[in-house]
Amino acid sequence: MPPSPLLRSLREQAAALRDGTLSATELAEAACAAYASRGKHDNAYLTWQGEAALAFARATDALIAQGGNSGALMGIPVSIKDIYAVPGLPTYAGSSRRLPPHWETPGPLVTALLAQLPSLMGKTHTVEFAFGGLGTNAHWGAPRNPWDRDTHRTPGGSSSGAGVSLISGTASLALGTDTAGSVRIPASMTGVAGLKTTAGRWPAERIVPLSTTLDTPGLLARRVDDLAYAFDALDVDLSPHPAKVPAIPHLADLTFGIPQRFFWDDCSPGIAEAVQQAIRQLEAAGARMVTLELPKTDEAYELFQQGGLAAAELAAFLRMELPDMLETLDPNVAARVAAADDMPAWEYVRRRVVIDRLYQAAAECMGQVDAVLTPTVAITPPTLESLQPEGAYPKANMKALRNTVMANFMGLCGLTLPVGQDDAGMPVGLQVLAGPWQDARLLAIGQAIEAKLGTGLDILGEPPIV
Amino acid sequence: MPPSPLLRSLREQAAALRDGTLSATELAEAACAAYASRGKHDNAYLTWQGEAALAFARATDALIAQGGNSGALMGIPVSIKDIYAVPGLPTYAGSSRRLPPHWETPGPLVTALLAQLPSLMGKTHTVEFAFGGLGTNAHWGAPRNPWDRDTHRTPGGSSSGAGVSLISGTASLALGTDTAGSVRIPASMTGVAGLKTTAGRWPAERIVPLSTTLDTPGLLARRVDDLAYAFDALDVDLSPHPAKVPAIPHLADLTFGIPQRFFWDDCSPGIAEAVQQAIRQLEAAGARMVTLELPKTDEAYELFQQGGLAAAELAAFLRMELPDMLETLDPNVAARVAAADDMPAWEYVRRRVVIDRLYQAAAECMGQVDAVLTPTVAITPPTLESLQPEGAYPKANMKALRNTVMANFMGLCGLTLPVGQDDAGMPVGLQVLAGPWQDARLLAIGQAIEAKLGTGLDILGEPPIV
Repeated sequence: MPPSPLLRSLREQAAALRDGTLSATELAEAACAAYASRGKHDNAYLTWQGEAALAFARATDALIAQGGNSGALMGIPVSIKDIYAVPGLPTYAGSSRRLPPHWETPGPLVTALLAQLPSLMGKTHTVEFAFGGLGTNAHWGAPRNPWDRDTHRTPGGSSSGAGVSLISGTASLALGTDTAGSVRIPASMTGVAGLKTTAGRWPAERIVPLSTTLDTPGLLARRVDDLAYAFDALDVDLSPHPAKVPAIPHLADLTFGIPQRFFWDDCSPGIAEAVQQAIRQLEAAGARMVTLELPKTDEAYELFQQGGLAAAELAAFLRMELPDMLETLDPNVAARVAAADDMPAWEYVRRRVVIDRLYQAAAECMGQVDAVLTPTVAITPPTLESLQPEGAYPKANMKALRNTVMANFMGLCGLTLPVGQDDAGMPVGLQVLAGPWQDARLLAIGQAIEAKLGTGLDILGEPPIV
Repeated sequence: MPPSPLLRSLREQAAALRDGTLSATELAEAACAAYASRGKHDNAYLTWQGEAALAFARATDALIAQGGNSGALMGIPVSIKDIYAVPGLPTYAGSSRRLPPHWETPGPLVTALLAQLPSLMGKTHTVEFAFGGLGTNAHWGAPRNPWDRDTHRTPGGSSSGAGVSLISGTASLALGTDTAGSVRIPASMTGVAGLKTTAGRWPAERIVPLSTTLDTPGLLARRVDDLAYAFDALDVDLSPHPAKVPAIPHLADLTFGIPQRFFWDDCSPGIAEAVQQAIRQLEAAGARMVTLELPKTDEAYELFQQGGLAAAELAAFLRMELPDMLETLDPNVAARVAAADDMPAWEYVRRRVVIDRLYQAAAECMGQVDAVLTPTVAITPPTLESLQPEGAYPKANMKALRNTVMANFMGLCGLTLPVGQDDAGMPVGLQVLAGPWQDARLLAIGQAIEAKLGTGLDILGEPPIV
C-alpha cells in the first residue's frame, strides 16, 4: 500500500491539489481508509462523517477543476474538537447530552475554516467540558493512544481525539483548545505538533467555555510547518492584529532560555533526557542557550492546584446555561468543579489579580530571549488502569498539566513538537514558549527547530499497526 | 466684595490668565479667602494646602510672564479626591490610617493634570474606599452640603468633598471617581456639573480601587462647558482613542430617549417635577423626545442591591493590600463589604457575565438616540440625623445610587448638570447618558442643554453665606 497522502506536509498537499497530482477525493478516501482500518479502535471521534466528507471532497474537486480556489485549506481533511459549534453536527462538549441548538451555530474560527472548504471528517472527543489533561471521559471512553498497541494509554487531553485523529491518518489538521495545556498535552502524547495561541488573539465565541479568562483556540498537525501554514491561512481572518509567519530564522541567531528548575522535576524516565538531547542538538547547531527562570512558577502551580480560575468559571457557566449537567458530570470533572464550591468571590478576584501580575512579570521576562524551552509534559501517557486507584487521577492530571499551564497563567503563546521517545516508548514533546502576541514568530522559531531535529515522522515513524 | 474669579468659566479664567487681566495668584488667593470664610465649616478637605498653592501660583505667574504655557489648566485652582495618589500629600482613601508610600506616587491622570501646572489646593474627603453614595464618613465626618445653612445635609458621595470644594469657591475643577455614581451624585447634590467617563477610557492606575471592573475617573466643575474644556485638556494624554469635544449641536438636531419607568419611581418631592420641566424646555427649543426604556433595569438594580461586583473586589483588595483595615472600617462600609463574605466565586463570575450582557444590550439600545435623560438622583440630600436610625443608611444609600449605577452596569458614559431645586430647596440634577466612548459628543450635547437652560450659577445662584 502506498503511503497515505495525509503524511505529506500541508504545503505539499495544497500544491498537489492545485497542480492536479492529488485530489480532495483521494485525501478523503485515504482518511476513510485509515478510519476503516483503525478508526473505531482508536476512538478519536464522537461523530465521524466520512461519507459526507467524501461527497464534499468530490464537489470540491469539481470546483478545483473549474479553477475555483477558496483558500489555503481547500480540500484538506480536518477534524474539529467537540466543543466547537459546527453547523449540522451535534455538540456534546464531552458531556452525556447533546447541547442546545445554538451550540451548532459556528463562531468566527469555524466559519473562517469552513469557508476555505476543507473536508470535515468529523468531531473529535474531548474531556467533558475540556476540564482535564489526560483525555479520559466517563461518558464516551478515552481515545486510545496509538503509540501503545497493547495497553490502553491516555491520548492526552482535553483535546483527546485531536492528536489521535492526526496520528491515525484520518485528518491533516485538527482544531483543539488550550486552557491549561489541552492542545499541547495531546499533541505531545501522540507525537504531533500543537499551537496554543495567545489569549485574546483568536475569538473563543461559540466554543463551549471552560474558562472565559484563559480559553484559547489552537491547532494540531503533524509538523510545525503545517501549523505555520494553517496559522497563515486563518490568522488574517481572526486576529485583531493579524500577522504572517516570518522567514525561518537561523538557529545561530536565536537565544533560548532554559529554566533550570520546576519543569524538570520528577519527569518520567527518558523525558528529560530526550528534551535535553534535543537542546544539545540545537546548541551544536549554533543556538545560544541561557539560563532563564520563569517568574513565580511555584506560586502559579499552587494556584492551579487549588482550581485556578476554571473551576469557578465553569461552575458559573453550567449554573447559568446547563444546570442539569451538574448532576451528571464525569466524576473526575465533578471533583474539579467542586473545588469552586467553597471558594469565596474575593478569592476569585484575588486570583485574577495574581494572574494579571504573572502576565506582566512573564511578558517582561520573555523579552530577554527569543523563546523558552522545556519538556511539554512531565509524565509518560498513563495507562487507564493506572488511573483507577483512589487519588491516582487527580495526581496524574495535575502533573500532566504542570508544565503547560505556566504558559496560560503567564499569558504566553506556546507550541510543542515531538523530539523523541521516553523509556516507555511513548512520544516526548519539546515545549517552545514565547511572549504574548509573538505567535507568528514563535512558529518561525519552531520551524527552525524542526528543520534541525526533523519532523515527528522522521523521529517517531508511524504508529504500530493495530 | 467683587465676585470670586473662580465663578468665571474655565475658558474665561484661562484666557484672562493669558491676557494678563487675571493671575494665578489672584485665583489662589480667592480660593484661600473662600476657605477662610467657610472652608472649615464645609469640611470638604482632608488636606488643605492653601499656602503651598499660593507659593506655587506665584511661581506660575512668573512663568506666564516669561511666556510660559504648560497647558490649558495652567494656574487653575483644582482639588483632588483623596483616593488619587498625589506626590507629597498623604492618601487615606477615607480610611482611618495613611496608606503606604506607593499610594503617594501619582498615576497617569494626576501626572497629566499636574504637568499643566494647576494650583493644587488640596485633597478632598471621600467615603471610605469610595464605597457609598451619600458622603458620610465615620472617621472624618461628612462634608456639609452648602445649600442648607441650618441643617447638616449630606453632600453626596463618594466624592463627598469634590462638589463642596467647587460650590464653596475653593476650586474651579475637581477630580472625582465614579463606580456607581460617585461623581454624579455629589455633583447633583451640590448643584454642579459632573462627568463619568466610559470605563477603560482613562486609566485608573494609582487610584485606590473600589471595583477594578467598574471604577472610572471623572471630573466635577461648575458648568458642563468647564467639563468640556478640562476634558479636551486631559483626554489627549489619557485615552487610547483620544477625542476632542465637537461643535455644540443644535437642540433641534437631537433626539433624546426618556425612560418612562424606574428612574422616576418614588422621587423626593420636586425632583421629578424639576427634571420634567427641564425636558419640556428642551422640547420647546426643538429637541425630539422619544420613549426609550433601558434594558433590564430591574435585574441590574437587584444585582446592585446584592453588592454587585464592588463588595467582592474591595474585599479582595483589602485582604491583599491592607488586611488590617478590615478591622477598622466605617460601619456602613463594613456592612457593604460583608455582603461579599458568603458570595461564592461562581456567583461573582455570573455577575460579570450579566454585566457583560447589560453592556451589550445597552450599547445597542443607545444607538437609537443621541442621549437618554433622567433625574440624576431620586432623593433629596438626606440630613445626617435622618440616617441615624437602624436601617436608614442602607435604604437611603441604595436609593441615592439607583439612577446613576445603571450607567456603570451598562458601560455608558454620563454627565449631570443642575436644572432646579426640589421642594426642600436642594439642587436637582439632570442625568444625560450616552453610549460607550461617546464621552466627547456627550459633553457637546451637555453644552447644548446648558446653553438653553443656563448654568448652575444662573439657576441656583450662590449658596447661602454661613
